[in-house]
Amino acid sequence: QRPDGRQPCELRHHSFEPNFTRFAPGSVLAKCGDTQVLCNVSITEGVPRFLLGSGKGWLTAEYRMLPAATQQRQERELLKLSGRTQEIQRLIGRSLRAALDFRLLGERTITVDADVLQADAGTRTTAITGSFVALAYGISRLLEQGILERSPLTRQIAAVSVGLLDGEPFLDLNYVEDVAATVDFNVVMNQNLGIIEVQGTAEEGSFSRHQLNQLLDFAETGIQELLISQRQAIANWESLLTNN
Amino acid sequence: QRPDGRQPCELRHHSFEPNFTRFAPGSVLAKCGDTQVLCNVSITEGVPRFLLGSGKGWLTAEYRMLPAATQQRQERELLKLSGRTQEIQRLIGRSLRAALDFRLLGERTITVDADVLQADAGTRTTAITGSFVALAYGISRLLEQGILERSPLTRQIAAVSVGLLDGEPFLDLNYVEDVAATVDFNVVMNQNLGIIEVQGTAEEGSFSRHQLNQLLDFAETGIQELLISQRQAIANWESLLTNN
Amino acid sequence: QRPDGRQPCELRHHSFEPNFTRFAPGSVLAKCGDTQVLCNVSITEGVPRFLLGSGKGWLTAEYRMLPAATQQRQERELLKLSGRTQEIQRLIGRSLRAALDFRLLGERTITVDADVLQADAGTRTTAITGSFVALAYGISRLLEQGILERSPLTRQIAAVSVGLLDGEPFLDLNYVEDVAATVDFNVVMNQNLGIIEVQGTAEEGSFSRHQLNQLLDFAETGIQELLISQRQAIANWESLLTNN
Amino acid sequence: QRPDGRQPCELRHHSFEPNFTRFAPGSVLAKCGDTQVLCNVSITEGVPRFLLGSGKGWLTAEYRMLPAATQQRQERELLKLSGRTQEIQRLIGRSLRAALDFRLLGERTITVDADVLQADAGTRTTAITGSFVALAYGISRLLEQGILERSPLTRQIAAVSVGLLDGEPFLDLNYVEDVAATVDFNVVMNQNLGIIEVQGTAEEGSFSRHQLNQLLDFAETGIQELLISQRQAIANWESLLTNN
Amino acid sequence: QRPDGRQPCELRHHSFEPNFTRFAPGSVLAKCGDTQVLCNVSITEGVPRFLLGSGKGWLTAEYRMLPAATQQRQERELLKLSGRTQEIQRLIGRSLRAALDFRLLGERTITVDADVLQADAGTRTTAITGSFVALAYGISRLLEQGILERSPLTRQIAAVSVGLLDGEPFLDLNYVEDVAATVDFNVVMNQNLGIIEVQGTAEEGSFSRHQLNQLLDFAETGIQELLISQRQAIANWESLLTNN
Amino acid sequence: QRPDGRQPCELRHHSFEPNFTRFAPGSVLAKCGDTQVLCNVSITEGVPRFLLGSGKGWLTAEYRMLPAATQQRQERELLKLSGRTQEIQRLIGRSLRAALDFRLLGERTITVDADVLQADAGTRTTAITGSFVALAYGISRLLEQGILERSPLTRQIAAVSVGLLDGEPFLDLNYVEDVAATVDFNVVMNQNLGIIEVQGTAEEGSFSRHQLNQLLDFAETGIQELLISQRQAIANWESLLTNN
Repeated sequence: QRPDGRQPCELRHHSFEPNFTRFAPGSVLAKCGDTQVLCNVSITEGVPRFLLGSGKGWLTAEYRMLPAATQQRQERELLKLSGRTQEIQRLIGRSLRAALDFRLLGERTITVDADVLQADAGTRTTAITGSFVALAYGISRLLEQGILERSPLTRQIAAVSVGLLDGEPFLDLNYVEDVAATVDFNVVMNQNLGIIEVQGTAEEGSFSRHQLNQLLDFAETGIQELLISQRQAIANWESLLTNN
Repeated sequence: QRPDGRQPCELRHHSFEPNFTRFAPGSVLAKCGDTQVLCNVSITEGVPRFLLGSGKGWLTAEYRMLPAATQQRQERELLKLSGRTQEIQRLIGRSLRAALDFRLLGERTITVDADVLQADAGTRTTAITGSFVALAYGISRLLEQGILERSPLTRQIAAVSVGLLDGEPFLDLNYVEDVAATVDFNVVMNQNLGIIEVQGTAEEGSFSRHQLNQLLDFAETGIQELLISQRQAIANWESLLTNN
Repeated sequence: QRPDGRQPCELRHHSFEPNFTRFAPGSVLAKCGDTQVLCNVSITEGVPRFLLGSGKGWLTAEYRMLPAATQQRQERELLKLSGRTQEIQRLIGRSLRAALDFRLLGERTITVDADVLQADAGTRTTAITGSFVALAYGISRLLEQGILERSPLTRQIAAVSVGLLDGEPFLDLNYVEDVAATVDFNVVMNQNLGIIEVQGTAEEGSFSRHQLNQLLDFAETGIQELLISQRQAIANWESLLTNN
Repeated sequence: QRPDGRQPCELRHHSFEPNFTRFAPGSVLAKCGDTQVLCNVSITEGVPRFLLGSGKGWLTAEYRMLPAATQQRQERELLKLSGRTQEIQRLIGRSLRAALDFRLLGERTITVDADVLQADAGTRTTAITGSFVALAYGISRLLEQGILERSPLTRQIAAVSVGLLDGEPFLDLNYVEDVAATVDFNVVMNQNLGIIEVQGTAEEGSFSRHQLNQLLDFAETGIQELLISQRQAIANWESLLTNN
Repeated sequence: QRPDGRQPCELRHHSFEPNFTRFAPGSVLAKCGDTQVLCNVSITEGVPRFLLGSGKGWLTAEYRMLPAATQQRQERELLKLSGRTQEIQRLIGRSLRAALDFRLLGERTITVDADVLQADAGTRTTAITGSFVALAYGISRLLEQGILERSPLTRQIAAVSVGLLDGEPFLDLNYVEDVAATVDFNVVMNQNLGIIEVQGTAEEGSFSRHQLNQLLDFAETGIQELLISQRQAIANWESLLTNN
Repeated sequence: QRPDGRQPCELRHHSFEPNFTRFAPGSVLAKCGDTQVLCNVSITEGVPRFLLGSGKGWLTAEYRMLPAATQQRQERELLKLSGRTQEIQRLIGRSLRAALDFRLLGERTITVDADVLQADAGTRTTAITGSFVALAYGISRLLEQGILERSPLTRQIAAVSVGLLDGEPFLDLNYVEDVAATVDFNVVMNQNLGIIEVQGTAEEGSFSRHQLNQLLDFAETGIQELLISQRQAIANWESLLTNN
């Protein structure tokens, strides 16, 4: 039995609160259980040097935890980012870039800031899923302002964590479960359950091909539910997805 | 007339939302107009080297803006903090240390994290006023847990900004006013309106002794109101202030 | 047809040259096609703080490219490591820790230095596979010197890259193929083909569950061959693997 | 009674030695009691990016202590400046910018280097007062060289420290007094005793409006005397102040 | 008697293995006894700012030790280079710049990377002597590719270490001798035994003019032999040296 | 003829002003022509880790230029020291360590701070020669205070620069000469003209053994004169040199 009484293949309660702050074009407070991530999306004219003159845009992501987000206060990362932080912000960036047709964005740069206000495991997948909602709001504002004529959103993206405890698969681990898991998986998929990214690590021992497929089954179930929640949270969802 | 229709000596609407996050002993979302600062207070055993064996505790503060807190996204400060950030976190630390009898705290360190979620001027004074509320909640939890026998809070602390526009004093400037002001003042006081800190700068020209006293009159008015709001926001306020 | 005439599921020519330098207990020049990684294993008494007194050892890894390893000279990473470098050295460390019973190592720290002398893709998997051989030589020397009584090596570890080009799977991509691939996979397995780590990224579009399983089939084939090559390169292999 | 026999409202002996080094256009060794600050003023063509094309110049300041300036040798600040150093150099810069009409300077940047050779308290105010003299010499040289046609000096600036000991005000504290003071004030004024900056901190307890005004009275007395000394130290003072 | 049976004025066995890696235009593994330095020479279009428009090229050098190059593993230099590393790479750069007529190179920058794979003293002199061979190969490739019409190599450069043990001179010290030496000398000369650089340090006591001249006699003998070895290692040596 | 009318083998006017600042045990303003270096010597209890328990002391040196010391203002070195600065401070440290018997110093650390106030070439040699005088004053104070019973000064150390212009040797180059010189030499000797360090670099072309010996003849002449000046500047010189 899970600590919070959930079924093995059940997500935690989750929600997306749009317009959480008012200056960023897209601003969503994403909650998944006790995990809370503030996802802000900013858009600036211009692109990194390697895209100058290409007519294409770019998206980059930054991820941080507030020091008091965890049960024991953690030092801020100054001077250099930890390997963990860098891995996560690279993952968020790659995942959300898969949602966009950069030709339709034009030479603009989208910056996603995912700041964890409260951490109870699953912060990176909550950051991805919540930032997608913020991205949709940000794009929506550019369309309203007439800066963009056509939405560059060509795919919907969501992410979830799964893991093995005592050899059995579980969906959306909280902190207590995460610490006990022997295998930890993060999965990013699009609206058709096409895989964008899969990262699985055996913290102890190893896992079999059969177990890997069980974990992906659970991930698919969770992501399907998150895709629905995202669409409910995005006011004008129908008009934002471009087919290409 | 002020952009938001306030009287010259009128504060913006302000509020303190306690228990905003759940892991930090004290966590308050302080709002003052459109300025929003998340104030988290953490408490750890032990003190910096210069206090080892003294029997006394310490308080230190960190201040940051989220990148999307301002109208234009700002880069995070990595590698080194700006002079502005360092000045502000030193000011927050000094101001809140004036609230405490460190002998009653014992060899513990309080860390205040003031993270600005949304910035419309007055972030440093909102950080001080809100962090005092968070500090009271944090102390309260230590008392409930029996870690402290007696509250080390010996003074109440609040802060406000005032400024001169066209030679006239105004209380609690918002961003538009702040940019236009020729003199910028930050004032920190205790519950008896004793001055803890005063910092005034002429951005342009200079100001007279008479104007300085007008500004302090306005500051006193604003701080009196903030002191009342703080006490209303702190559940068990009566029992937390120790006379010494 | 592949640029170098290989079959889709064929590894590049590879070799492990032990004792490449003489001061490190384990030193192997691992080659896989034109990729060359110098893998050095050093062992010191003592462990990081979080393991002090635990009776257990630790393994950590560092990965770098020499500036002239690539077709265009690359700047050395000073000041801070790139996210890519950090990801890779974390992956190498996790993978090789899966080979060891740290109780049998005692409070010692193994440092793996993987320095890429020449890069033609697959540097991280070559680093893992080659460092395992260096690790075996390092452990062997500790046993000869009587510092260890029993080998802490409890599993054999190897890694390989696979990828999708035009929707078809290929094993062990070289640089030209790597640039063209739409999906890039790194797989780490033990001697029983138990999965230690799987990381797969769609650089473009997405991939299906079916394709993922094809890629893992190819990875299994490649890793089986690498496991054999490793055992041939390790002089006293039989005596080094401890069952636990 | 004060340690050096001064009256409460009496400055320490002070002097300005111009042309202390020969390469900087303005170079003054400013002494105030045992505090010695070498103030060098350099002038370069060009301005920071935010002023490009504005027709206006800029002034920036750097402040450091030599390691052996204090009774116990202090480490040099490498990698990052302390909050104290940053606060001080920002204060020096703001104060001296108040002396200049940047339109008359044109697109040039003045750099003030205040290096403390010996520290007995009051280093920041001595740096401001001494750097003003160095600034006048630097401007004078530009006028002699025909680079400037008209002096951009439109105000005279001086600074002094005051403090409360046992509730009583004292002017120009030395190190022993500074350590004992409960309230520490730095005041910057122009030639008409218009206030440019006031910073007051209660190190212990708080202070009243009445005490604040007593401190400012003392500061006015000290600054009047310093303004006279500055004018005596500047050879061609009459010709350097422009009315605007 | 020397630990390895050499005569006082006898070099260690040495060799230069060209084309050690394949991407750098010049790549030489230089060995001198147990010291092994991988010398890679890269050439890029463009020069540092101070040479822009001068028509002249530049050469810069980087020097590092692999962590496992020494008997005890050494930490990599991150954040900042040690004084020793900086001294050595400046010496390598100066020495090799003496080999070139930069007008004939044109506005190109040569980067020498000297990475020590194994260290048994004399790494800096081996780096210089080996990098000269790599430089010749790099120049040769530019000539073959028609990028250069005429070789910019106008001098041949080699370096050797000498030292005093018990007051007597010895050539090409190994690690054991280097530790015991009281005077340590590095000498760089050209093909006519003209001195390019001499650096001598008494680690203990001092040395006389007579001893200095004895050391230089030994250095001349060693360098003459190294000059011959270099010429034998450079395939088309005759055609590469330009008289100017 | 030299720009300032000196003979080829003539030093610039030089002087040592002791007790320039009052907090450091040894403080000397050393001048050599227009070069001015403030040399401060501080002494603290304790030694670096590698000498703990050895009964021996240590000496370390720091060297900096004030930004306005040169004709064009130079940026301060923050974040990292330049290779030039590191080389110089290592040279100063090595040279002055040659003056001391660290067993007589006991487990104390001497820190030499050489800050260049004005630079007209020869700053490193002036720093060494001047710091020796400051060191003698510092030792003298320790003896007066009874902290040391016997002086650890066992040798007198001085340094000078020499160079070749148009193939001819010159002593103690000033800036104009230094820029024009093709060979630049720094020589450190003890009171018997025993060589402590010699560093010679051909900036252009090379130099012969004969020229090297001419340069050392000039250096000996200059150093003999500096040794006399040092002894005249040290009040109680006779009693400070210990024979060992």
